[in-house]
Amino acid sequence: MSGNTLGKLFCVTSFGESHGPAIGCVVDGCPPGLPISAQEIQVELDRRKPGTSRHVTQRREPDEVEILSGVFEGVTTGTPIALLIRNQDQRSRDYGNISETFRPGHADYEYWQKYGIRDYRGGGRSSARETAVRVAAGAIARKWLKERYGIAIRGFMSQLGPIPIPFESWDEVARNPFFAPNAGIVPQLEAYMDELRKSGDSIGARIDVVATGVPVGWGEPVYDRLDADIAYAMMGINAVKGVEIGAGFECVTQHGTEHSDEMTPEGYLTNNAGGVLGGISSGQDIIVSMAVKPTSSIRLDRRSIDKQGKPVIVNTHGRHDPCVGIRATPIAEAMLAIVLMDHALRHRAQCGDVTTDTPRIARLAPQGVQRVPPPRA
Amino acid sequence: MSGNTLGKLFCVTSFGESHGPAIGCVVDGCPPGLPISAQEIQVELDRRKPGTSRHVTQRREPDEVEILSGVFEGVTTGTPIALLIRNQDQRSRDYGNISETFRPGHADYEYWQKYGIRDYRGGGRSSARETAVRVAAGAIARKWLKERYGIAIRGFMSQLGPIPIPFESWDEVARNPFFAPNAGIVPQLEAYMDELRKSGDSIGARIDVVATGVPVGWGEPVYDRLDADIAYAMMGINAVKGVEIGAGFECVTQHGTEHSDEMTPEGYLTNNAGGVLGGISSGQDIIVSMAVKPTSSIRLDRRSIDKQGKPVIVNTHGRHDPCVGIRATPIAEAMLAIVLMDHALRHRAQCGDVTTDTPRIARLAPQGVQRVPPPRA
Amino acid sequence: MSGNTLGKLFCVTSFGESHGPAIGCVVDGCPPGLPISAQEIQVELDRRKPGTSRHVTQRREPDEVEILSGVFEGVTTGTPIALLIRNQDQRSRDYGNISETFRPGHADYEYWQKYGIRDYRGGGRSSARETAVRVAAGAIARKWLKERYGIAIRGFMSQLGPIPIPFESWDEVARNPFFAPNAGIVPQLEAYMDELRKSGDSIGARIDVVATGVPVGWGEPVYDRLDADIAYAMMGINAVKGVEIGAGFECVTQHGTEHSDEMTPEGYLTNNAGGVLGGISSGQDIIVSMAVKPTSSIRLDRRSIDKQGKPVIVNTHGRHDPCVGIRATPIAEAMLAIVLMDHALRHRAQCGDVTTDTPRIARLAPQGVQRVPPPRA
Amino acid sequence: MSGNTLGKLFCVTSFGESHGPAIGCVVDGCPPGLPISAQEIQVELDRRKPGTSRHVTQRREPDEVEILSGVFEGVTTGTPIALLIRNQDQRSRDYGNISETFRPGHADYEYWQKYGIRDYRGGGRSSARETAVRVAAGAIARKWLKERYGIAIRGFMSQLGPIPIPFESWDEVARNPFFAPNAGIVPQLEAYMDELRKSGDSIGARIDVVATGVPVGWGEPVYDRLDADIAYAMMGINAVKGVEIGAGFECVTQHGTEHSDEMTPEGYLTNNAGGVLGGISSGQDIIVSMAVKPTSSIRLDRRSIDKQGKPVIVNTHGRHDPCVGIRATPIAEAMLAIVLMDHALRHRAQCGDVTTDTPRIARLAPQGVQRVPPPRA
Repeated sequence: MSGNTLGKLFCVTSFGESHGPAIGCVVDGCPPGLPISAQEIQVELDRRKPGTSRHVTQRREPDEVEILSGVFEGVTTGTPIALLIRNQDQRSRDYGNISETFRPGHADYEYWQKYGIRDYRGGGRSSARETAVRVAAGAIARKWLKERYGIAIRGFMSQLGPIPIPFESWDEVARNPFFAPNAGIVPQLEAYMDELRKSGDSIGARIDVVATGVPVGWGEPVYDRLDADIAYAMMGINAVKGVEIGAGFECVTQHGTEHSDEMTPEGYLTNNAGGVLGGISSGQDIIVSMAVKPTSSIRLDRRSIDKQGKPVIVNTHGRHDPCVGIRATPIAEAMLAIVLMDHALRHRAQCGDVTTDTPRIARLAPQGVQRVPPPRA
Repeated sequence: MSGNTLGKLFCVTSFGESHGPAIGCVVDGCPPGLPISAQEIQVELDRRKPGTSRHVTQRREPDEVEILSGVFEGVTTGTPIALLIRNQDQRSRDYGNISETFRPGHADYEYWQKYGIRDYRGGGRSSARETAVRVAAGAIARKWLKERYGIAIRGFMSQLGPIPIPFESWDEVARNPFFAPNAGIVPQLEAYMDELRKSGDSIGARIDVVATGVPVGWGEPVYDRLDADIAYAMMGINAVKGVEIGAGFECVTQHGTEHSDEMTPEGYLTNNAGGVLGGISSGQDIIVSMAVKPTSSIRLDRRSIDKQGKPVIVNTHGRHDPCVGIRATPIAEAMLAIVLMDHALRHRAQCGDVTTDTPRIARLAPQGVQRVPPPRA
Repeated sequence: MSGNTLGKLFCVTSFGESHGPAIGCVVDGCPPGLPISAQEIQVELDRRKPGTSRHVTQRREPDEVEILSGVFEGVTTGTPIALLIRNQDQRSRDYGNISETFRPGHADYEYWQKYGIRDYRGGGRSSARETAVRVAAGAIARKWLKERYGIAIRGFMSQLGPIPIPFESWDEVARNPFFAPNAGIVPQLEAYMDELRKSGDSIGARIDVVATGVPVGWGEPVYDRLDADIAYAMMGINAVKGVEIGAGFECVTQHGTEHSDEMTPEGYLTNNAGGVLGGISSGQDIIVSMAVKPTSSIRLDRRSIDKQGKPVIVNTHGRHDPCVGIRATPIAEAMLAIVLMDHALRHRAQCGDVTTDTPRIARLAPQGVQRVPPPRA
Repeated sequence: MSGNTLGKLFCVTSFGESHGPAIGCVVDGCPPGLPISAQEIQVELDRRKPGTSRHVTQRREPDEVEILSGVFEGVTTGTPIALLIRNQDQRSRDYGNISETFRPGHADYEYWQKYGIRDYRGGGRSSARETAVRVAAGAIARKWLKERYGIAIRGFMSQLGPIPIPFESWDEVARNPFFAPNAGIVPQLEAYMDELRKSGDSIGARIDVVATGVPVGWGEPVYDRLDADIAYAMMGINAVKGVEIGAGFECVTQHGTEHSDEMTPEGYLTNNAGGVLGGISSGQDIIVSMAVKPTSSIRLDRRSIDKQGKPVIVNTHGRHDPCVGIRATPIAEAMLAIVLMDHALRHRAQCGDVTTDTPRIARLAPQGVQRVPPPRA
């Protein structure tokens, strides 16, 4: 019941502070027999790691992962998989000057009030650095989902501040530092970010994630619904302030005739549900969208208070992301992978395996017609 | 780890189908010594129950609650509190004609695929009728939160389909069947609903919930954040497709200078965070907004399939809510109450009680200046 | 994480007081499609119920169970199964005189100190009456285990106070009120109990339970071992003070050459392990033994204190079992069934189903030679 | 819900194989503000570590612990505490010859059947080496229990094979390699072990653990009873086959007049309950006894099978403990500490803190007269 454990059967227990000796996690419940290597995990970590372009933080962290347990002769053994990432570039001196004050928009004040402790080293546990371990654990989940069910999990940036990014192609996502699914818009994004960086301010973003190939039937109503657990996972990413499934907030103005997805023998005609009905996957794409707030670490003067409650002016000179949304895509993918894997196992526990135990019915064409790409793009 | 249990320490385990003998729940972990009666719980149930106006379903359910255990001589004993609501008006015949088909937009097909069972009686477990037990359990949570911390949890409808409902006053909320915080707009809402009902269609809505008086320090990062658990709880309400905390999706276009809430000795200057930073309550109002989709039970013809995968036309003649959002406010309040109570206990477990153990610091004025009412209204 | 929930995937959440309106439970996580009826559950309840012979409490409780949810058209639906047993014969007046005092050997003082509440009605929640719901839930588990894996779970009394009961035959167990596997010894047991009852005193007992047909591979090391969870379940039965697996405490004086069970292509040669090695089932019989203390409700004078801490003399005139061990056999069977079912689902979640996913190896003859009946008998 | 996590609120998640790169754990839920250092943890590890006398395994493991997170400036921060112990002396070659066979009495066959993987390196995850992390985590728990409640947790060996060890003094326990509370008997134990070692065989033992100073009121009935969780924890230690609380199996032959502990204003007169009634601590000493089986790693020929099911003769030449019970005392103490701390937090969550919230009653003299030392000695 640990607050730092994600998942009920595929359990990721995370540890580590931004500027402590290391971060890492223990992944428990992974099925045995999955081939996995540190190199494969590294590939995902490299997508998230800092310092890869001028638009993200310049902190130098190789984010090199070591597998400490749970893998023997190249495959998972079914025992806990411990992943360790040593911190390298923990310039705590950058933060010394803020040890007595609270940065507005950060969780400094909240952590201090909750625990009575002020770990001022780069935000300590509240730092987004922790998300590296989610990406590492997610790499295991996505490999298993891919191998066993052919599930693909892909995300992209759909809006950068005021600039919507129309979806064109999954192929483009990996070709620019923004995870933008659109080549033509990249120069505009770069120009926007360059100007922003100069201004010392920061900006929000919207990230979409899609899982393709999820079988119908995953999710544990009425509380541990698939969409509820996705919302939990996404809102649990640093800086996320909103989560949508499928049509999301657009459904407020939709009529039933418009929103509810009609079914035909060839499949659903639309996917306003975003792949989840009644908390259970429908067999369509799972479509999630989230809002990432602008980072609160900015170089501009802000009003705040110190530990004595006295007014102070704070501005933050550490190395930060002016748009934390830029690096959020691999994190969101990882979180979705972890939730899906957890539910795959939970479903298998109660109902048997979709691929073996449940040929109970002729499968209806599950994915015939649907809106692709997802509604937000 | 039951999918039908909400909460980690204040645990609500729900049971029951729409048209079975009864619905109910077991509330475990409630602190002893709380005065509570069936009458107090009934007050909350009556706010949600069907048949109270022409704008909601005409099913006749008194929703009378019986306390089976856990309360002795008028106070909670610390042992599990079982709450029972017998179903009265379960006209299953209304549903007989749909036993072989799947209603589009419902979870019929998903439940059938997941469990291999087709409980066609009014949606069975997937029916929103189950939310009555959340309201009942929530009544206990809100009383404890009120008594111990002075917390008030209040919700309202902030948009009905295309009609935004400007916030005017909490006092109005109880005076109209829509939970609208605005007297002047009620005739417009009534006219809209009357026309909608005639058309046989349905519509979405937006609901906001606010918790006032929550102490700083609740929430269990990095995964069981307060906002993550709120997102889980709200997305877990039937028909909800989106959840926002504070500024929500507006933060996508906000700059850091605009979004991050400055602090002064007198308190925060704004509340874009919606009362949660780093997953921990900030002491400001907790502000949550959610999108409720239009019900899929409409009297208009819709394309669907039957259990053999053959095409059929479905329209639903049962007694339904043309806007399920109308009755969602008490449910959302209850869910927020349950989450907050759970986190109150979790915080007390690890850090001691805020009112006794932690006078460690002079409390900063937590709630000085903030946007009231919440940003969405 | 409720203290009143048993199991992680097959979850039994219990409620109810001895002299409140009802006791019952919610069983969540049961696989769908299992045929089950109230009558089948009743059969198990009748084995445990009071008043069936002169050797047990004369309280008249029909223990009639009602299924409130989770079963439709005679089979489980996969949704929570609520079971309700109304209390009939709650003569609280028997207990009025003890409302201000603490009965020695009971949990009166402990409940009062923990919760600040004194529910004096027959022990309230601490009464063994609660075990009826375990038996009811266990009936579901044992049916599923029987149907799916052919597992049989059977218990018997192996010692009544000073009288060891040699194992002769499973067939005898149902033919006497003691669950004694030995017809010849029954007159001796009856004489012993008659004399004991006259004396007003009570006596302890030893109960053994055996599960046959459990597949190799169940159990979740290193903490949620199968034997650890069995120990938890058995020690969690009212009045149990000791639990053994296999050779149990005899292993203290055993050499490795004697204790460790040799294997041959035909199977194990012995079963000192009691069917569990390294926390995982070995394919041999699971063998459990437990010590049940003498009930503390006796008609003889005992020294105690009242709520003011003053010395008092207590003797208990309610209707009680002079040997609670007599009715413990069905409870112990139920607990073992629940633990095994929980682990069956947990194993299936991580490793796939033993009957479908894992023909990975030619199965070694698992049960060739072993000590039958179990070592204790 | 991970099988490798111990505790509900004070959560220890363990990882690592005997001959992998490292073992370790993540301790989540520890209250903030506890002063703790690697040195303090090391003190406990050194009590358990191998190679300290000729009577235990000669494997050379310094068992040096590194704190990776959760401690800042010498005190716990409330965030997860990761503890890492690198394996040094992992002579896997000792085990190469057993990679195709199953050692009788070990979990080789069970792990292989469960996971389909044969990690033959010293037993892999099933090795008792994993217990080092329990001792490390337990060091944190016992410090907190000591500081906050003055609780002392102490264990000793009460029987070595056929030799009962009468309790004389806690002071002796640390003065001999057996944790024997009796100086006079040590030569006899040494002689016995020397002869045993020569024979190549192994032997069982009995270990007792006592917690003094536990407040009345801890434990979560009716399932997560304090004694049930203790039984789970102790049976979860490698090689344990039986657990008793208080009088344990002696209660089988006790009468109620003998077993149930009378109370007086000065305290209880006896402690047959072993400090737990109805699953709740009584304020008396918590007394636990457990049976540790003889290790199955012996140098004598044993019948077994290989992966093809063919008969083989196995004997084990690695470095092993001829009596694993000798090193079990610190492990049992650690497990008891972890369980108690978990329940301290659970109790505080629901009922408030015993030291602050609950001056509800004048405390009765809780510990007046009782059997000291515990009944077994």
